[in-house]
Amino acid sequence: MSLIDDADAAASGPLSESGGRWLRVAAAQLGGVARHEPRSSVVDRLIAMMRQAASADVELIVFPELALTTFFPRWYVEGEPDLDLDWFYESEMPGPDTQPLFDEAKALGIGFCLGYAELTPPDEDGRRHRYNTQILVERDGTIVGKYRKVHLPGHREHEPWREFQHLERRYFEPGDDFPTWRAFGGVVGMAICNDRRWPETYRALALGGAELILIGYNTPIHYAPDPSQNALQSFHSHLVMQAGAYQNGAFVVGVAKGGTEEGVESLADSCIIAPSGRIIALTAHTGDEVAFADIDLELCRNYKETLFQFDRYRRPEAYGVLTERRGPVSPPPLPET
Amino acid sequence: MSLIDDADAAASGPLSESGGRWLRVAAAQLGGVARHEPRSSVVDRLIAMMRQAASADVELIVFPELALTTFFPRWYVEGEPDLDLDWFYESEMPGPDTQPLFDEAKALGIGFCLGYAELTPPDEDGRRHRYNTQILVERDGTIVGKYRKVHLPGHREHEPWREFQHLERRYFEPGDDFPTWRAFGGVVGMAICNDRRWPETYRALALGGAELILIGYNTPIHYAPDPSQNALQSFHSHLVMQAGAYQNGAFVVGVAKGGTEEGVESLADSCIIAPSGRIIALTAHTGDEVAFADIDLELCRNYKETLFQFDRYRRPEAYGVLTERRGPVSPPPLPET
Repeated sequence: MSLIDDADAAASGPLSESGGRWLRVAAAQLGGVARHEPRSSVVDRLIAMMRQAASADVELIVFPELALTTFFPRWYVEGEPDLDLDWFYESEMPGPDTQPLFDEAKALGIGFCLGYAELTPPDEDGRRHRYNTQILVERDGTIVGKYRKVHLPGHREHEPWREFQHLERRYFEPGDDFPTWRAFGGVVGMAICNDRRWPETYRALALGGAELILIGYNTPIHYAPDPSQNALQSFHSHLVMQAGAYQNGAFVVGVAKGGTEEGVESLADSCIIAPSGRIIALTAHTGDEVAFADIDLELCRNYKETLFQFDRYRRPEAYGVLTERRGPVSPPPLPET
Repeated sequence: MSLIDDADAAASGPLSESGGRWLRVAAAQLGGVARHEPRSSVVDRLIAMMRQAASADVELIVFPELALTTFFPRWYVEGEPDLDLDWFYESEMPGPDTQPLFDEAKALGIGFCLGYAELTPPDEDGRRHRYNTQILVERDGTIVGKYRKVHLPGHREHEPWREFQHLERRYFEPGDDFPTWRAFGGVVGMAICNDRRWPETYRALALGGAELILIGYNTPIHYAPDPSQNALQSFHSHLVMQAGAYQNGAFVVGVAKGGTEEGVESLADSCIIAPSGRIIALTAHTGDEVAFADIDLELCRNYKETLFQFDRYRRPEAYGVLTERRGPVSPPPLPET
């Protein structure tokens, strides 16, 4: 008598041996970028780290969220965002300021992942759109994929009670999906900053086959709505990325814009995480720094084909509430006694 | 111009002050239970820990998965499970052997959570069903809620290559939902063992308002399909429960049947975890042991009403794949070059 009725008739077995799929990856942490620091200066800093990584034969270097500018959502700008903030957005990629980065990557034969503020060309209604975006560029300089941040944190209106603003919900529209791409010998997905705190992010990417998840972030240490979380920023950042790696059998590269930027202290602690959930490389400083590791994408199988064999063990029929509901619905209050 | 169109017009603010909702909770770890250890002996052990907890004015004590028996899915039993394994299942709760636990709880005024193998009465087709079950009992001895394990790990057929079997998928049917209940001054949910490794578990419970998630487990240190995970059992167990607590702004109580049971070494490291994701109580041994903590359910608000305010920040419209797909679908292979 079989008590459950699924694909279980097939026996399981010990994990089979396989050859390696090695990739040398770097997390290229960036220190603060000043409000008026020119693009060319930032691009020079990125290129310096790219050269450092290439000198160690790194094949893929990951830069942080909004790597080309300061984290401008900390400021409320009077008037229409498109009148006052255009300087912070890229209207083409590569553009004149970023072309040297692409040229250098191609010359060095190194791929990269870069976060920036995107301003689209006008759509058919003449509207231009703004996204918090990250791209993946292959070793030949071609853009393989583009991801637009799905989970925009913070707020939309000016909130003078905060020490500094977090106006991502004013200055960006959200993306709507978690694509994955074949690149660098495996399946790659991307996420940005606050996305990493949401388990749905990693799960959606892993359901797209992701073996390597690249995450840039800008995380202020001070969290205005609940400053009791300030001292836990590093712990929380690592906790969610380590759990996301383990629960999805994927490598995660998490890369900060760290240090102090325009007076705001930001989390550093960039890292590379194995599918075991363990941190295998970590930055030691808060400024510009490259941490790297040799990763074997075949290691994902140790989790994806055993404990977390999704097609055997996931129970989507019990997960309906995850997509049916946005917010929680608690049971009704107990009657007074 | 508002770039995103949702409930954001309302300003956010710093977390408001509130009174506490304190509860004293105990994780009652159990050492091994022998195959032929009588129920009365196990119940005596549970009662001893219940009295110890009650002497510290604990209000809720949590026992592990399958607390009343040995972890019998480690054995393949020839023939029909219902002919040979009935001894391990409870056909009533409370039954003659477990009534003393309920009586003691009521006399002491302490609530409890208990995992056991459930054998249902015949349904309308005359079939009896088997579940890996956990119940929540209020301080007056009434059963408030019952949960049946959704994520059954292991396998269904005899696999002689393993040192010991993990036949949960043979001996149990899966449950199909993650209910929550108002009890103990808050909203309580339950999960069992392997459920804790799946982020969907905590998320479904938190979407039901859960502030306190009670999880019993039996986790062999040896993981046959990939023994490289053996040394990471404690790290993995804590990682997933800590992430589940933090990402859902809930307390988690994780309780082991630890120690060596019928020759199989099992993970201990029972713990109580705050909504910050931090372990605030931990067992120090591998046998019968009570760890307890005073928890303030209001602390959940620090996360549920800020960073993880689901109705403001979740993006179910981007999560469709979580319920549409069971297993992964990778991008098509790249063309040969």
